[in-house]
Amino acid sequence: MNQFTKILKSYLPILDWGAKYTGKTATNDLVVALIVSIMLIPQSLAYAQLAGLPPEVGLYASMAPLILYAIFGTSRSLSVGPVAVTSLMTLAAVAPIAAQGTPEYAGAAMALALLTGVILIILGFLKLGFLSNFISFPVMAGLGTAVGLQIAAGQLTPVLGIPADGGTFLKQVISLVKNSGEINFYIAAIGVSSFIFLILVRKYMATLLMRVGMGKGLAGILAKMGPVIAMFIAIVAVGGLGLDKQGVKIVGTVPDGLPSLALPPFDLELWGKLVTPALLIAIVGYVASFAVAQSLASKKRQHIDPNQELIALGATNIGASISSGFPVAGGFSRSIVNFEAGAETPAAGAFAAVGIALVALFLTSLLYFLPSATLGATILVSVLSMVNFKAVKVTYAYSPTDGIAMAMTILLTLTLGVIAGLMAGIGFSLAMYLYRTSKPHMAVIGQVPGTQSFKNVDRQEVVTTPEILSVRVDESLFFPNASFLENKTGEMVALNPDVKHFILNCSAVNSIDASGLESLKSINQRLKEGGIAFHLSEVKGPIMDGLKKTKFYEELKDRIHRTHYDAVAAIDPKLAKQTFNAVGNTSIPPE
Amino acid sequence: MNQFTKILKSYLPILDWGAKYTGKTATNDLVVALIVSIMLIPQSLAYAQLAGLPPEVGLYASMAPLILYAIFGTSRSLSVGPVAVTSLMTLAAVAPIAAQGTPEYAGAAMALALLTGVILIILGFLKLGFLSNFISFPVMAGLGTAVGLQIAAGQLTPVLGIPADGGTFLKQVISLVKNSGEINFYIAAIGVSSFIFLILVRKYMATLLMRVGMGKGLAGILAKMGPVIAMFIAIVAVGGLGLDKQGVKIVGTVPDGLPSLALPPFDLELWGKLVTPALLIAIVGYVASFAVAQSLASKKRQHIDPNQELIALGATNIGASISSGFPVAGGFSRSIVNFEAGAETPAAGAFAAVGIALVALFLTSLLYFLPSATLGATILVSVLSMVNFKAVKVTYAYSPTDGIAMAMTILLTLTLGVIAGLMAGIGFSLAMYLYRTSKPHMAVIGQVPGTQSFKNVDRQEVVTTPEILSVRVDESLFFPNASFLENKTGEMVALNPDVKHFILNCSAVNSIDASGLESLKSINQRLKEGGIAFHLSEVKGPIMDGLKKTKFYEELKDRIHRTHYDAVAAIDPKLAKQTFNAVGNTSIPPE
Repeated sequence: MNQFTKILKSYLPILDWGAKYTGKTATNDLVVALIVSIMLIPQSLAYAQLAGLPPEVGLYASMAPLILYAIFGTSRSLSVGPVAVTSLMTLAAVAPIAAQGTPEYAGAAMALALLTGVILIILGFLKLGFLSNFISFPVMAGLGTAVGLQIAAGQLTPVLGIPADGGTFLKQVISLVKNSGEINFYIAAIGVSSFIFLILVRKYMATLLMRVGMGKGLAGILAKMGPVIAMFIAIVAVGGLGLDKQGVKIVGTVPDGLPSLALPPFDLELWGKLVTPALLIAIVGYVASFAVAQSLASKKRQHIDPNQELIALGATNIGASISSGFPVAGGFSRSIVNFEAGAETPAAGAFAAVGIALVALFLTSLLYFLPSATLGATILVSVLSMVNFKAVKVTYAYSPTDGIAMAMTILLTLTLGVIAGLMAGIGFSLAMYLYRTSKPHMAVIGQVPGTQSFKNVDRQEVVTTPEILSVRVDESLFFPNASFLENKTGEMVALNPDVKHFILNCSAVNSIDASGLESLKSINQRLKEGGIAFHLSEVKGPIMDGLKKTKFYEELKDRIHRTHYDAVAAIDPKLAKQTFNAVGNTSIPPE
Repeated sequence: MNQFTKILKSYLPILDWGAKYTGKTATNDLVVALIVSIMLIPQSLAYAQLAGLPPEVGLYASMAPLILYAIFGTSRSLSVGPVAVTSLMTLAAVAPIAAQGTPEYAGAAMALALLTGVILIILGFLKLGFLSNFISFPVMAGLGTAVGLQIAAGQLTPVLGIPADGGTFLKQVISLVKNSGEINFYIAAIGVSSFIFLILVRKYMATLLMRVGMGKGLAGILAKMGPVIAMFIAIVAVGGLGLDKQGVKIVGTVPDGLPSLALPPFDLELWGKLVTPALLIAIVGYVASFAVAQSLASKKRQHIDPNQELIALGATNIGASISSGFPVAGGFSRSIVNFEAGAETPAAGAFAAVGIALVALFLTSLLYFLPSATLGATILVSVLSMVNFKAVKVTYAYSPTDGIAMAMTILLTLTLGVIAGLMAGIGFSLAMYLYRTSKPHMAVIGQVPGTQSFKNVDRQEVVTTPEILSVRVDESLFFPNASFLENKTGEMVALNPDVKHFILNCSAVNSIDASGLESLKSINQRLKEGGIAFHLSEVKGPIMDGLKKTKFYEELKDRIHRTHYDAVAAIDPKLAKQTFNAVGNTSIPPE
């Protein structure tokens, strides 16, 4: 029973913190929820617009995920909902399949969220969270810059009223330039002034409020309310001046009420097209969420479980899917607000979901006159902080390979799209990593006079003899380096024609896989054919256990030595002893 | 000039051995060539049949490659031409594109050889030979078993006269069982008796000849002539008894003469379809050739250059392409004959090409009555030695992951085809490798009393204090393990609530990439927010040079210590000294 409770608690963290939940915590979480839910409204509407979906879908995608994360999540502060990168990836995945505004488009977005969720849960149960490690930091940072630019270019359409084709950054820019004559000045006036207002609020509001005596925490939170204030002003202005009649695009009628629960269309052909984007959204969303969750948790010395986070994020995506939403992830800005407002448990998120639900139920009519230009400006401001070209230079200076990986990711994302950029970045980083690990360091070693220890001949004064070649390999023997070991051994022997004994020092070898074993076998075979005896020294216990199961061991066992000194002493006892008895670093000429 | 000659010689090894070529070597090579060219005739005809091509194409594909390898190759013994695996892969790649027997089929095979050659040459110039490391030994061995079975199943059609569908092993077997009633007993009689004859010759001929007084070397070579003898008997039998009128399939009229030199069709759509199979043929062909070349070279202490071998194999494939052939590789059995007959230089191969050309010019009429059944039996006998199921068990016992990779490769190749099996095997091995490297070993360390050295607390009696957490990481910091380091650090700190100083011992860290640097930064940030000071100790010189270029260094520099003892002594000098002055392994209680 105890074991069962433990497993249950690991899959349902709510059982853990829920048991200790008090009235005081609840009051605190309620206050946090009020702030957060107000802040989430414009964000949710804007990201729905970015994903090519109607505004209410943004609200829908913000409710179930918050509640489900409260049940399954291990972070106390992470806020899950629509975020920039996954919204853009949703647009990229669904736009080629269905036309925006159709039920097919909405259905495909739901299916995408479902697949994303299922993939995340499978990865979680298989404990495959480590897969996300393979998006290296430079690739993720490069993706951020490129996605930021692509989203920014896309938002110039609602912000300036210039019609443009969708697609990659490159396509968008070409099309924006071509159509720049069609700018609508009413839209541009609203868009640009919203943009400037948001930038100013973000930069100066907190300082200003603090100067008039407000506490730092409250001032910080209020400064994040900029988008809400901008929305309010824009709604009043557009409604009051009747600007919608001048071609200014407004949100219009947002259907009241909560999303109906429904499964996405069951259509294997559709699912087949969406499975690759879903996998990438799952991984990118997970990497981003996990980074945010971990950085907030460490501030309070809390622990985040990577595999449970996969399950939690999977559950939130399935929740988003069946409540007519689209793929979600843990967001940076929304989580920061949550954290800084003082959320003590994930219940704050669940309460915020209730707040959003109330808006969806009763207040959507207030959003009627909200101009798309202001929503676009909100996105524009938040994505510009993702763009960082200087990082390429800094990274290149520290590690050229990493700099190239980052530049490659940016360039390909801008010209060919997110998926191409991401795949190229991951592929290049992996290839470079494998190249590095395929060439382990190998050193010829010799006996340090006065000791029984053996060191690199290039680093220390040591004693060697032409008949014995002692080599240390500084890596476990795995298939990526197995043939390198074979080649290198061949080269070393070819350079030392008088060798009669080759001793491989395995002190740094922690494991040997089947390919490594095979390469040892063929090294032994070849050396034998060349009249050279192959020896091993300092083989670790677990490796010996494995070797003893093989036929190879029968052949080699008399030439496996406990220490390297034992090996040399077994072949040339005179030299080994003489060197050991020498004083200090006096070099002893062999023979 | 000297540098130029050196580079020229590295790309044209013939300049090296050609300069030392004497009349005596030439005589020797000529004798070898006579033996080898006779042996190559049935092999070439049989592999053309396997690839779905007319018999003369097998002869064509054996000439130019032998001559070109003599110019570019670094092995003295490797014999390049049609081999089993690449012939099967050619069939798999071309059969879906064109019907057998059409000029389109032959053209596609030529295009495939051209692409294979170009890919190999590009890999060679980019020095990407290391990529072949990523086909691990179990995957290659599993592929051999599965390909052997698939080829064997395919040869039951010519050997028994049962018509069958092509495709995977599974498809072939189902179709053979279904059509088993259509067996032609004349064909089966020839096929089965050829098969038994070849098996008996292979097993007993050498011993028999030696018993009647023949030398071991000559007996071994004559035993390899089994296929030639079988061909001769079969031709006489079929011709004499007029069996071709009983439905026995014969080779029929083979066009006289040498291949005309021609480029394959220039058709981008066709090339697009062939580029993936060409890449796989290039890699598989290279891995197989290189293994053979290396194992023969080491017997004579010769050196093989992996990147030049790529270029040489590329040149031979381009040669095969423009002489109306199909993809080629270094073959095991043909190279062994070459080696055992005593080939001293690659000129032996070039001379053998002349021998084959003479057959193509003047002797093809002799092949008229050669039954396909005998050619099929030749292939059947040679591929059965590739099948080795026991290897799965042996490999699994030594390393379960490798055993699974092998079983997976076999199973998927048999059911879904060579390319699917190969990709799954490579993918699985890589994923497992990355999983292993993503979790480096980390140990909490403490000071060994009486010394300044620090060891794993689980392995030795050491002194620690709750305020200082000393951790050693036994791996370079790269993106695959960067987040592991971060998580693990977080966990360790959470388990030690009194920690005020965290020292990361970097004695085993050989390099830190941009992701590793980023994880150090965020570890530092998080520890700082938790009120813990982050220290580094024993950072190697080249890493320090890199770190000094970063802003992070400015923040951390006072907490980077030369030795781990220095680090502890800087924090708690009393404890460090007290422990150092203690005698032997006396445990000193902290405080």
